Amino acid sequence: MDNQVTLVQKTVVVTPGGRVEEKETVAIEAPYTVGLNGRDIGTAMVLETGLEEFGAGFLFGQGYVTEPGQVREVLVCPEGRISVHAAVDEEDEPKEVIITSGCGGTGKISREMLEGAFDPLHEYTLGFEEIRRFIRQVLHYSPLGQLTHCVHGCGFWSDGKLQAHYEDVGRHNAVDKVIGAILLGKITARGAIYTTGRLTSDMVLKCARIGIPIVMSRTAPSSLGLAIARRAGVTVAAYARPERLNVFHAPERILS
Amino acid sequence: MDNQVTLVQKTVVVTPGGRVEEKETVAIEAPYTVGLNGRDIGTAMVLETGLEEFGAGFLFGQGYVTEPGQVREVLVCPEGRISVHAAVDEEDEPKEVIITSGCGGTGKISREMLEGAFDPLHEYTLGFEEIRRFIRQVLHYSPLGQLTHCVHGCGFWSDGKLQAHYEDVGRHNAVDKVIGAILLGKITARGAIYTTGRLTSDMVLKCARIGIPIVMSRTAPSSLGLAIARRAGVTVAAYARPERLNVFHAPERILS
Repeated sequence: MDNQVTLVQKTVVVTPGGRVEEKETVAIEAPYTVGLNGRDIGTAMVLETGLEEFGAGFLFGQGYVTEPGQVREVLVCPEGRISVHAAVDEEDEPKEVIITSGCGGTGKISREMLEGAFDPLHEYTLGFEEIRRFIRQVLHYSPLGQLTHCVHGCGFWSDGKLQAHYEDVGRHNAVDKVIGAILLGKITARGAIYTTGRLTSDMVLKCARIGIPIVMSRTAPSSLGLAIARRAGVTVAAYARPERLNVFHAPERILS
Repeated sequence: MDNQVTLVQKTVVVTPGGRVEEKETVAIEAPYTVGLNGRDIGTAMVLETGLEEFGAGFLFGQGYVTEPGQVREVLVCPEGRISVHAAVDEEDEPKEVIITSGCGGTGKISREMLEGAFDPLHEYTLGFEEIRRFIRQVLHYSPLGQLTHCVHGCGFWSDGKLQAHYEDVGRHNAVDKVIGAILLGKITARGAIYTTGRLTSDMVLKCARIGIPIVMSRTAPSSLGLAIARRAGVTVAAYARPERLNVFHAPERILS
């Protein structure tokens, strides 16, 4: 990835004692329009990394792409366009949409996605030796988070190692990039995802739809996120630290 | 407000040493459909507080309502509907929309809003004696944030006191509730807003559009949030603490 994703800005630190000039690093947020087979689906504000994955994951989050293997090609134009070519049926498009506002990035999910049935998840368990390495690596690989305080990180773990790691100005976009990597065949969904963002309904929903069995967050779940986890059978571990998880559903996948 | 906004959930805390049952309080996220003059505009996931304000602010964020005085009536149906009646011209509807993904709650803004001109802001300055009281009160009035780690808070300060304070599962929704209070005539825009959420483009944009001169955040701004602040002339103070602000634009409104 060659894009510049941060800018240094002059700021003035003001205290009751006076003002001092300083510099701060801020994350660059840029609008990208995602197209599917030549038609514009939506425009999103993103951090310019993992844009191919983002394009695929965004279309999954919106319900246009539903499984790995459908995406044939993703072309990223740095002027702000991600063109996805995928073998999808236009008649299967999402109907009534819900705008996901639990700080919900990529914007909208359809009511049928929220209320529909889920396919069985992949079989997978995870012990603490791996959880410790997983969480430490995700946080370690997020220098932008510490630098800008304006990005979320998301990692994916399977087969004993960190398989993917993405960052974005939106917690949803970061998860969409991981899901895009699954859709593009770079990784499989049989593993665990860890996000620095909250697990609201839309976050848990997309992980469940793609078949990820273990969903972990540095922070909290919402009531509806948990309801979806129960319905789909997803293990939800919140406030996840290298030595401690608070498991809200299906703790049997966590081996202590 | 009589709605129950939290739930207690049984959880299992798993550590390498074993498992212990615990209880956690989670925020209840519920879908509400916002209608304008009888027509559905969108459905959002919200915390069930300040729903009248949310309905008005949501329509402002989406570009359907543009100024105070337009909203005639807001009816909230607890089954998940907020019906707004407003004196707006249906031909003025937003055109090409951008889904705001900087963790961007209420979903979408139009390109013309992002690129358009801004009206002059209200004249307003703020000294540290007031800033200290403002920030402390917002954080103090957010028990849900500390309890659930799943809500953002947003306060509005003018005339020497905290005029409004709202919480929501989305940082956008919390700001939309404050803007809704302005639209409903409960408060005026001549003051300062403080949010616990990040100042991405969409957050700064709606504050600038309604005319709020000082926008403060507990955390960081993004590059595009700052670009909009410069264009609109909004004072942006980030990493805001009772004794220290990091001012990215227009520090002259902060008196030390």
